[in-house]
Amino acid sequence: DLIWQELSLKDLKILSIGYQVEKGAYSADAIDAMFKEEEVKKVPYRTSYDVVDALKKNIISYGLLPLENSIIGNITHNYDLLLENKLTIEREVVIPIHHTLIAHKEAKLDHIRVIYSHPAAISQCEVFLRKLTEVEIFPTYDTAGSAKMIAAKELKDTAAIASKEAAELYELKILKENIEDYPNNQTRFVLLSHEPMQMEFEQFIPYKTTAVFDTLDQPGMLYECLGIFEKYKINLSQLSSRPHKTEPWKYHFFIDFDGHATDDNIINAFEEIRGKTHDHLPSLESSF
Amino acid sequence: DLIWQELSLKDLKILSIGYQVEKGAYSADAIDAMFKEEEVKKVPYRTSYDVVDALKKNIISYGLLPLENSIIGNITHNYDLLLENKLTIEREVVIPIHHTLIAHKEAKLDHIRVIYSHPAAISQCEVFLRKLTEVEIFPTYDTAGSAKMIAAKELKDTAAIASKEAAELYELKILKENIEDYPNNQTRFVLLSHEPMQMEFEQFIPYKTTAVFDTLDQPGMLYECLGIFEKYKINLSQLSSRPHKTEPWKYHFFIDFDGHATDDNIINAFEEIRGKTHDHLPSLESSF
Repeated sequence: DLIWQELSLKDLKILSIGYQVEKGAYSADAIDAMFKEEEVKKVPYRTSYDVVDALKKNIISYGLLPLENSIIGNITHNYDLLLENKLTIEREVVIPIHHTLIAHKEAKLDHIRVIYSHPAAISQCEVFLRKLTEVEIFPTYDTAGSAKMIAAKELKDTAAIASKEAAELYELKILKENIEDYPNNQTRFVLLSHEPMQMEFEQFIPYKTTAVFDTLDQPGMLYECLGIFEKYKINLSQLSSRPHKTEPWKYHFFIDFDGHATDDNIINAFEEIRGKTHDHLPSLESSF
Repeated sequence: DLIWQELSLKDLKILSIGYQVEKGAYSADAIDAMFKEEEVKKVPYRTSYDVVDALKKNIISYGLLPLENSIIGNITHNYDLLLENKLTIEREVVIPIHHTLIAHKEAKLDHIRVIYSHPAAISQCEVFLRKLTEVEIFPTYDTAGSAKMIAAKELKDTAAIASKEAAELYELKILKENIEDYPNNQTRFVLLSHEPMQMEFEQFIPYKTTAVFDTLDQPGMLYECLGIFEKYKINLSQLSSRPHKTEPWKYHFFIDFDGHATDDNIINAFEEIRGKTHDHLPSLESSF
């Protein structure tokens, strides 16, 4: 459900970007990093499903969703949303992730007995959390909500792993910054449109493209498809599979590569791949 | 933490199988399907980390964990556990998954306003849940815990998506059976050992093997590795990647194929692959 407003911002000629508020400030940071010069309106939604729903109803111009984290891997349900709703990736941005332990203003780290956070955040702070032997850790699907509850109930033995911005928002204290295990913790966000937009992103070249295909059900077909990319000297940066859902143990393959969908070698490659796949829908350009 | 007992069952010469209780009856079903004739002791743990911990401490003979679901895809944190702890896959079983909506004995479907369940279960019952327009859905990380709470608090407007066995355990009522969207909902479980066991599984041929490797950081290396499998006529059934964690956007590749790690063609293939990879650790046999 739309949290702040029901207006169709598209009518206002200001770009409106829907994002999932639960993932908190990182999505907002990603929007800021993507739109440094343009004026945009950030529209928070509760879930990624709600973002896509708003996009399809033209309530927002774009949706921004995380697709991959460098520690936990693909955000798989967002890959599924991309495919099921035939969305187009318009742009990409990578954001460093820093986790913060936040608590009531009067709380002390030694007195914390309960920590709430999203399972993704918990799995990214395992080394830190294992040292807290007297603390019970509860996975939650709403880190911001946990922070809010800590503030509302004035809990002094409870903390949340969240962003610095959540601490500010709910007037909580930062107990410890940068508690993530891996210094190279980064999340890759993509800007999605329902129908490919006419917007110009020339400033964001070199281009990168994501495509999805189902290989024919014959042995070695994936290998042959990869051979076509090799033949046309297309550099692959990612290969992921998602289940077919209707047929167990069959997969859709998502592939990321350098270049634009209108480049000659990519057009030629996809013409060859078409003979070895059931379907393909290369999405438009995104960029680093 | 170990829930039922602290005994080292290995000493008792009865096979003890640790599993994650939160995933509930499906893991127990998988153990039953795997050990139809042998007498085994099922040892429930709260998380998959606890299962692996018990395995490494020799408290249990084997651990059983889900690796992949035909709708939601890989259970990625279990892939990570496999790799980080260098566990061996001994055996595999595929179990059909049926979800059930359960509630208080006096509850009625029309009066349900809140549904709790694990996000995986929620995403597998979307079509059913979308029809319940007046219901709020809360993702939780402990479906069994939600069922217990419904029973303890005698909530009559609240239901949980869980297994039939959870309804029985907490004396709850089944409101609706088989609410999953896809009839082909199946989960693939693997039996894991810490050190490869000497157990004989000849009755389970044909064999299947899972290996993991990191390709050298040169373009086209994954394609070349797949070409080696092709050359030795090794049939691949699954290819997955997991993040490298220390280096963003580098991946470990997990590969499933038909055959045994001691087969000549597989030994030869891995000798060739060794030249193109940083490391590899083919695990021992599992089987259909």
